[in-house]
Amino acid sequence: MTQRTETLKLGLFLRATGHHIAAWRDSGSQADAGIRLEHFVDLARKAEAAGFDTLFLADSVSVRGIDAPTFDRVIAPSLSFEPLTLLSALATVTSRIGLIATASTSYSEPFNLARQFASLDQISGGRVGWNLVTSSDPDAAKNFGGGHQGEQAAHADRYSRAREFHEVVDKLWDSWEDDTLLLDKDSGVFLDRSKLHRADHQGEHFHVRGPLNVLRSPQGKPVLVQAGASDDGRALAAATAEAIFAAHQNLGDAQAFYSDVKSCAAVLGRKPEHIKILPGVTIFTAPTSAEAHAKHQRLQNLVHPEVGLSLLSGLLGGVDLSHLPLDGPLPQDLPATNASKSRQQLILQLAAEGLSIRELYLRLAGARGHWTLVGSPEEVVDQLQAWFEGYGADGFNILPPTYPEGLDDFIALILPELKRRGLVPADGPTGKTLRERLGLPYPAHPATLTRGVLLAV
Amino acid sequence: MTQRTETLKLGLFLRATGHHIAAWRDSGSQADAGIRLEHFVDLARKAEAAGFDTLFLADSVSVRGIDAPTFDRVIAPSLSFEPLTLLSALATVTSRIGLIATASTSYSEPFNLARQFASLDQISGGRVGWNLVTSSDPDAAKNFGGGHQGEQAAHADRYSRAREFHEVVDKLWDSWEDDTLLLDKDSGVFLDRSKLHRADHQGEHFHVRGPLNVLRSPQGKPVLVQAGASDDGRALAAATAEAIFAAHQNLGDAQAFYSDVKSCAAVLGRKPEHIKILPGVTIFTAPTSAEAHAKHQRLQNLVHPEVGLSLLSGLLGGVDLSHLPLDGPLPQDLPATNASKSRQQLILQLAAEGLSIRELYLRLAGARGHWTLVGSPEEVVDQLQAWFEGYGADGFNILPPTYPEGLDDFIALILPELKRRGLVPADGPTGKTLRERLGLPYPAHPATLTRGVLLAV
Repeated sequence: MTQRTETLKLGLFLRATGHHIAAWRDSGSQADAGIRLEHFVDLARKAEAAGFDTLFLADSVSVRGIDAPTFDRVIAPSLSFEPLTLLSALATVTSRIGLIATASTSYSEPFNLARQFASLDQISGGRVGWNLVTSSDPDAAKNFGGGHQGEQAAHADRYSRAREFHEVVDKLWDSWEDDTLLLDKDSGVFLDRSKLHRADHQGEHFHVRGPLNVLRSPQGKPVLVQAGASDDGRALAAATAEAIFAAHQNLGDAQAFYSDVKSCAAVLGRKPEHIKILPGVTIFTAPTSAEAHAKHQRLQNLVHPEVGLSLLSGLLGGVDLSHLPLDGPLPQDLPATNASKSRQQLILQLAAEGLSIRELYLRLAGARGHWTLVGSPEEVVDQLQAWFEGYGADGFNILPPTYPEGLDDFIALILPELKRRGLVPADGPTGKTLRERLGLPYPAHPATLTRGVLLAV
Repeated sequence: MTQRTETLKLGLFLRATGHHIAAWRDSGSQADAGIRLEHFVDLARKAEAAGFDTLFLADSVSVRGIDAPTFDRVIAPSLSFEPLTLLSALATVTSRIGLIATASTSYSEPFNLARQFASLDQISGGRVGWNLVTSSDPDAAKNFGGGHQGEQAAHADRYSRAREFHEVVDKLWDSWEDDTLLLDKDSGVFLDRSKLHRADHQGEHFHVRGPLNVLRSPQGKPVLVQAGASDDGRALAAATAEAIFAAHQNLGDAQAFYSDVKSCAAVLGRKPEHIKILPGVTIFTAPTSAEAHAKHQRLQNLVHPEVGLSLLSGLLGGVDLSHLPLDGPLPQDLPATNASKSRQQLILQLAAEGLSIRELYLRLAGARGHWTLVGSPEEVVDQLQAWFEGYGADGFNILPPTYPEGLDDFIALILPELKRRGLVPADGPTGKTLRERLGLPYPAHPATLTRGVLLAV
């Protein structure tokens, strides 16, 4: 039995045919699964029945790298549905699992984003989370050349806009107090107008009056999720995030991040247990360790060298590596780019450990920089337990290398072992809303807080 | 049997407790139906089973008129879900009915809008339509004060942006040719890059490179719907719309609009039968005419005078009428506003016929300016048939005064009579996609058209 009072949280990161970049070439995969609704419906129902707490969808507002020579080989896993429409569709075929969609603050309006998330939160009965990203993709800016004229904003500017964007969204989500509707048929009065609030936001980036035309949901408002691990990203997360999808390769880094974010949050007056840290992990498992390694190798063998190089180059922000020998080292003096800083750091760290370019891309092929475990159920769960009990994680965002096989393996082999050790509830998790599932508090409406203070005085 | 070769098309306009402004006060209604998912699921399934061709959702990006004294009485029917999230949720509980969502070109980015509609079109198997509006609501601008700083654009400017917005969306929807995916697991080549196209749009309002990161759907692209009846709106519709939701009070006006739009489209090189004109109609029916009129009166009695005045004032763009006697006439010299021109014209026309202010608001209460029929099934269907066979309509967008009662009445009483007369197919309509349902052609990808010409030469 674990020493921690809460059990560990489990997210499932949905993605076309799986998270390994060669997954679509695997004999068992349906190559175009990413554009088949029934594929996602099957995964969602399976994950809900198994007791996963959340489904998670990443996002991008471009077709990345269309000019790259390897484009026709690497595009496969990115081609899918838009997250909010897909999760809305999945909301009516599930009833308990959380639904977390990624959406960027750089290319949309706070009113539209607040409204769609609030609407889905209502539709799903309070099961929604917003993964706030700022979009490090340089191609995205080219699709939004009205205000920004196709130029990507610098990293710090993206975060300045993101902070204010979140502030506006959060105000809009508090437009309606929980008991605003009167529904009095006799008098004809529908609501108590004193409980409806404008946002009246006047900031550097946005002027938004409000109120939002969607009510608060059974969980008050969507759960705020973040993944940025740069200094800017970490600061925003400590101040505002309720769940964080981290990416670490070893327990030491995970623990450092975990304690850094939680203590930073405490300094800002937040309760550390109100931020759940969920590192991503890709798991290759089978009844025996040898079979698990064979499964892993089967996919690694499908990685075309051009695809591997392209993946590495992409994670480094588009640096050209095509002229370098695959079995030689990554140069020390890479040019600075506007890419995700956390991914760059990870790659440079691995390169410093002596990995060749080929070894680097094969290491990253599993899940683009996320932690990869290959082994028997006992070996895998030993590792997950060590991270959880060592306070490197409050749970995990699972990135199956292949769909559906990788998910089926997790459910058949890993989950029973997690239950046997008391790391997840034997009877499945409880809680109707996503907040309840994750052990997050209900966010009381600010107006009720103010009234409470006035009454207390 | 009708003389027209096609049968008439039937849309169902969803709206909280119904289209009559007092519907929520009716004893049979669930006052907060607009925010209950199961309400919409029930309506959608019922409409699909009955053979309706489409579901339709209007939209607004504000809570209108929060400062008006009657706000707490009139807000009821507007409070609901956001259309794209709601229709995505309904996509998985239906399988044949069309799904048409309204979205404004004034407050969103073409890439985001094109993407969400394309995604829902994929999710639903090609059943989606986009009702393009420019938002006449002055409150909406106050929620989007980044670029436009909270000022509503003038009518003509909104249409200039709308035309270019549609052009960009249409280009983005043609990013992928139908047979772009190769899915060749052996070679590792996922697609034929020569069949993927950028938009490369450089216009007055937008610079958008593309391509869109969602494929074309089984119907090619969403059906384009419009409702604007001003000169600007009519011109845009004749050039681009595939279905039009019109609002007329009598057959003469309906015929004039019908022939105007269709001949204008013909001048622009389009086939008139590729635009379906569907006037809105609210129907109060019962086995006998007397019962139908009693049903109508039951709801009219629930219209609070303040609500009626507010409705009239709102349709006139916010003109203050509160100081005028209810049983007196509407003044001739109303101030000019930025509101929907077609609605203003309709009201002025009715006022010129001698209707008092009270009579005006009661006339409009049924469906905010849409045609209202009160009578037995035979009386109602006589009218619908006259409009259809007289080329005033290709079908109707049905606005039940109450939900679910008004829909149940239509299905139980009107539909059998329409079938008996051969106006709708006795066995229900055929066609998998919305285009097939509406009798619209498949939009061949422009690249295939060019290739065809080259081959022919």
